[in-house]
Amino acid sequence: MNRTNRTYMTHPMVMSGMGMGMGMSPFFKMVVFEQEHFQGKCQEFTSECCNIKDCGFDNIRSIRVECGAWVGYEHIDMEGQQFILERGEYPHWDAYSGNLSYHVERMMSFRPIYCAAHQSSRMMIFEKENFLGRCVELCDDYPSLQAMGWCGTEVGSMHVQCGAFVCYEYPGYRGQQYIMECERHSGDYQRWKNWGSHCQTPKIQSIRRIHH
Amino acid sequence: MNRTNRTYMTHPMVMSGMGMGMGMSPFFKMVVFEQEHFQGKCQEFTSECCNIKDCGFDNIRSIRVECGAWVGYEHIDMEGQQFILERGEYPHWDAYSGNLSYHVERMMSFRPIYCAAHQSSRMMIFEKENFLGRCVELCDDYPSLQAMGWCGTEVGSMHVQCGAFVCYEYPGYRGQQYIMECERHSGDYQRWKNWGSHCQTPKIQSIRRIHH
Repeated sequence: MNRTNRTYMTHPMVMSGMGMGMGMSPFFKMVVFEQEHFQGKCQEFTSECCNIKDCGFDNIRSIRVECGAWVGYEHIDMEGQQFILERGEYPHWDAYSGNLSYHVERMMSFRPIYCAAHQSSRMMIFEKENFLGRCVELCDDYPSLQAMGWCGTEVGSMHVQCGAFVCYEYPGYRGQQYIMECERHSGDYQRWKNWGSHCQTPKIQSIRRIHH
Repeated sequence: MNRTNRTYMTHPMVMSGMGMGMGMSPFFKMVVFEQEHFQGKCQEFTSECCNIKDCGFDNIRSIRVECGAWVGYEHIDMEGQQFILERGEYPHWDAYSGNLSYHVERMMSFRPIYCAAHQSSRMMIFEKENFLGRCVELCDDYPSLQAMGWCGTEVGSMHVQCGAFVCYEYPGYRGQQYIMECERHSGDYQRWKNWGSHCQTPKIQSIRRIHH
């Protein structure tokens, strides 16, 4: 096996000829396309959009995220199902929409997510509503809360102390997604109905930090 | 905000009254059900199953993973699409199948995944086939390879030095999944056609370690 140009990957990776040129780029940048595979009408965004129809789009079918982390929503005004969007290419709706029994084929609004430095992200999860019952502090990524010792498939309430996290309905970062941020609601999510306008259950089985 | 019983979550979490009792449990344990929501015929497994029909199942529609990490396959004899299964509950097929334009509603075989200690998991990704071109060493979880500095949406070849990883087609751990293991093929994956019998493209945009 030839191993050339070996480099260790860090956060972020710094490599000759492969840097992102962050100093010259806007902190948030996303390009949306009306057709799949980055075709048709397109527009670049560097800040939130509350209604894609106001920008002349009927639908968004592919996305290229160039800087920062974003959250997309099923409905206008940041309502309905949420989809985390990180740097990379999403050539069709099911690349970003998550795997859901209730399939959503549209994204009507979106906004940037303001994260803390990755290493300082920190949140608490509680067994019961209103920050009661057993609790643990999370400061890493957890593809299975149960494997890490959590007592069941549900979470009663959460408090984000620093940064932003994605919580998922099923293990392995699958199913419904809920974006939890220190910068919103003072980081307090007292009960599952506060996790998002679409939330139907308190099921949470995996949680991870959101990177810049 | 009341914060009771505050504990830091580690790998694995150790908490009074919440331990997993690993000393008494088998290292791998999974219960499969013929109907959704853990109903109907069920069977417990502690090792691989090459064909669920040989165990009297026509289909598997819900899964409870109680110990260890597993990989499920679309076809018998560990062929076709792969699905990582970690500790927790999967009440219906789209909870474990991933979000795919080509939906798979069955899992016909499965096996345990042997992982290294989480902190020592390590792999290399290469820009080109046969371990050529730019390369980086990965020893963490990467929801967006591009955000970490990788040069595009594709990976040419991979070598797993220690442990096991899941590679995903899209950012944020979405899309097609490929399980990459040190224990298989000497950890060498020379080209994208070796990633799995179902693999159609060299697209890889997120990678994470598999925990015990």
